[in-house]
Amino acid sequence: MLHTVASLLKVKYPIIQAPMAGGITTTHLITEVANAGGLGMIGAGYLSPDQLRQQVNDVQEVTSSPFGVNLFVPNEFHVTEEEITLSNDQLAPIRNQLQLSQKPSNKNPEFNDLHNTFLEQIDVVIEEQVPICSFTFGIPSEQVINRLKQHGILLIGTATTVKEAIAIEKAGMDIIVVQGSEAGGHRGNFLDSYDNSMIGLMALIPQVVDMVNVPVIAAGGIMDGRGLVASLSLGAQGAQMGTAFLTCEESGANELHKAAILHAEEDRTVVTRAFSGKWARGIQNEFISTMQEKEHLLPDFPVQNSLTKEIRKAAASQGKPEFMSLWAGQNASMAKKQTIQTLMQSIVEEVKRLGYSI
Amino acid sequence: MLHTVASLLKVKYPIIQAPMAGGITTTHLITEVANAGGLGMIGAGYLSPDQLRQQVNDVQEVTSSPFGVNLFVPNEFHVTEEEITLSNDQLAPIRNQLQLSQKPSNKNPEFNDLHNTFLEQIDVVIEEQVPICSFTFGIPSEQVINRLKQHGILLIGTATTVKEAIAIEKAGMDIIVVQGSEAGGHRGNFLDSYDNSMIGLMALIPQVVDMVNVPVIAAGGIMDGRGLVASLSLGAQGAQMGTAFLTCEESGANELHKAAILHAEEDRTVVTRAFSGKWARGIQNEFISTMQEKEHLLPDFPVQNSLTKEIRKAAASQGKPEFMSLWAGQNASMAKKQTIQTLMQSIVEEVKRLGYSI
Repeated sequence: MLHTVASLLKVKYPIIQAPMAGGITTTHLITEVANAGGLGMIGAGYLSPDQLRQQVNDVQEVTSSPFGVNLFVPNEFHVTEEEITLSNDQLAPIRNQLQLSQKPSNKNPEFNDLHNTFLEQIDVVIEEQVPICSFTFGIPSEQVINRLKQHGILLIGTATTVKEAIAIEKAGMDIIVVQGSEAGGHRGNFLDSYDNSMIGLMALIPQVVDMVNVPVIAAGGIMDGRGLVASLSLGAQGAQMGTAFLTCEESGANELHKAAILHAEEDRTVVTRAFSGKWARGIQNEFISTMQEKEHLLPDFPVQNSLTKEIRKAAASQGKPEFMSLWAGQNASMAKKQTIQTLMQSIVEEVKRLGYSI
Repeated sequence: MLHTVASLLKVKYPIIQAPMAGGITTTHLITEVANAGGLGMIGAGYLSPDQLRQQVNDVQEVTSSPFGVNLFVPNEFHVTEEEITLSNDQLAPIRNQLQLSQKPSNKNPEFNDLHNTFLEQIDVVIEEQVPICSFTFGIPSEQVINRLKQHGILLIGTATTVKEAIAIEKAGMDIIVVQGSEAGGHRGNFLDSYDNSMIGLMALIPQVVDMVNVPVIAAGGIMDGRGLVASLSLGAQGAQMGTAFLTCEESGANELHKAAILHAEEDRTVVTRAFSGKWARGIQNEFISTMQEKEHLLPDFPVQNSLTKEIRKAAASQGKPEFMSLWAGQNASMAKKQTIQTLMQSIVEEVKRLGYSI
């Protein structure tokens, strides 16, 4: 029973490297995870179809092991001129500090464009025979799911509540990742509001596994073998880990991002929607505190994400982590600078020490 | 190592019935927990010294097993006339629906009175030779801790963050309960803000056990053997459970409170400060939604608690759960109407099934 997920995924260990978007999941990271017996995932949410095809080919050139691609399901969004003006007003002092012009150059994304990009990404996944595809922010259309299934691609949905997990199972996906409130980066809630979807894994895992029949993988604040065994005890069949992989030497995360996590005080992350318009957990910094007061009034994802893009880019290139999005889970203080090999080995050894077999 | 907490507490199983205040922890509940091999706790936060002495004597009459008392450490609080007026304005329509007069009769609590009551409660604990005393909302003075220790009383502190856990250990307490964000009822944070103290157990337990040397007990969203084993895997030595005991037949919780939990939809609780002035998790109802918009502006605990007392009492006696405080953890949907004996047995059996020994 405990081996179901590993055998479905065709990997040695039920350990998934979370699909962190934005250049973190390099080919090196993914192939090292594969070499160590886990499942590497391309965080493709922000990749163009061409970029995605390129990385898929790169990974396939280095390894014949399975790997996965994660895509963002596009949502309808509403935006007003007032929201954009308010956001730009709030961002102005930060643009100033980064010597950026006051007129943001990014044009607003259109839902139709995002939807077409998503369909092209799906084409790439099928054409390049990617074995595993996971989704965040929702469930793709029946048509998309059927196409992927006809090509034998294993499908993973992301749920933050019991209701979302049930919907994912009903849509015909093979595996559900349940994202606890501990998780770093973007919240994956899509049927339930942010407020209703901040559920700790200790409560979320058993409630979900009691209600669905497909295997469940736990995500959020899991950093080592203790967290994996705890997830298995609660009824999950594996763990998806982000922050633990992010600070590994092979990860493509910005060095300032890695350093911020490695020097994080214990339990000091916050959830903000100021960077992207969607709630996401990261290390508290000046950007977040500057924007906090009006963050409820900012435009939705992906509009706010587009409005802050130049800022995040300039902050990184000018070495100013105080204005970067430093995504991290609630266990950030446990992160280590180490190789993937060392991380994976220590997880497997600790699981054995705790008397579990994976 | 895993037996340390049980042997310290002198109980068979490292399972603590959470000290829920407000009449839930009846003598029947506590002695049944003791009979089943766990540790029963008197939730004495709102009891007068005389009431506390009475219940301690009642428990001692029925059982010679160990049990504990939980006390609220009084905090300095600040309150303005404006806050009280605002609160009464917000409460007015609710008082109306309950046919209560518009002038609340409660006078505001004084810190000095609360502090004196606390010291008298401590006297009772010592005089009546209560073996175990736990604290919520802070750490008592060095003098109080020393007196209790001189009398051989085992001390348990409640922490919501690593910082609070370290402070509790430093103050000389014997055991730390770590309260995850999943927990029902009042948040125990006292050094860190509410925002900084909403940490899921998956992240909180390993970070705390890595930083302290005293045994740690996990609390929050734990409902069964799976949760206990998960807590042990993460490094805790036991579990404190509230909601699971609250719906038991022997609990003194109002039947409407029990019914609200037993019919709770999965993962549908919210955190509110509208009932007491301190953040606490319960089932969403009309009281919470009515008060939500201005809840940040309401007076601090215990002033707001005093202002809502008549309302909560009238709501209970008029059979209107929509205006009661229906405290519950994030796992409320897993609660069952059962005996303590059945609950404890099923936990122990599940732990064994999962290959752990307790």
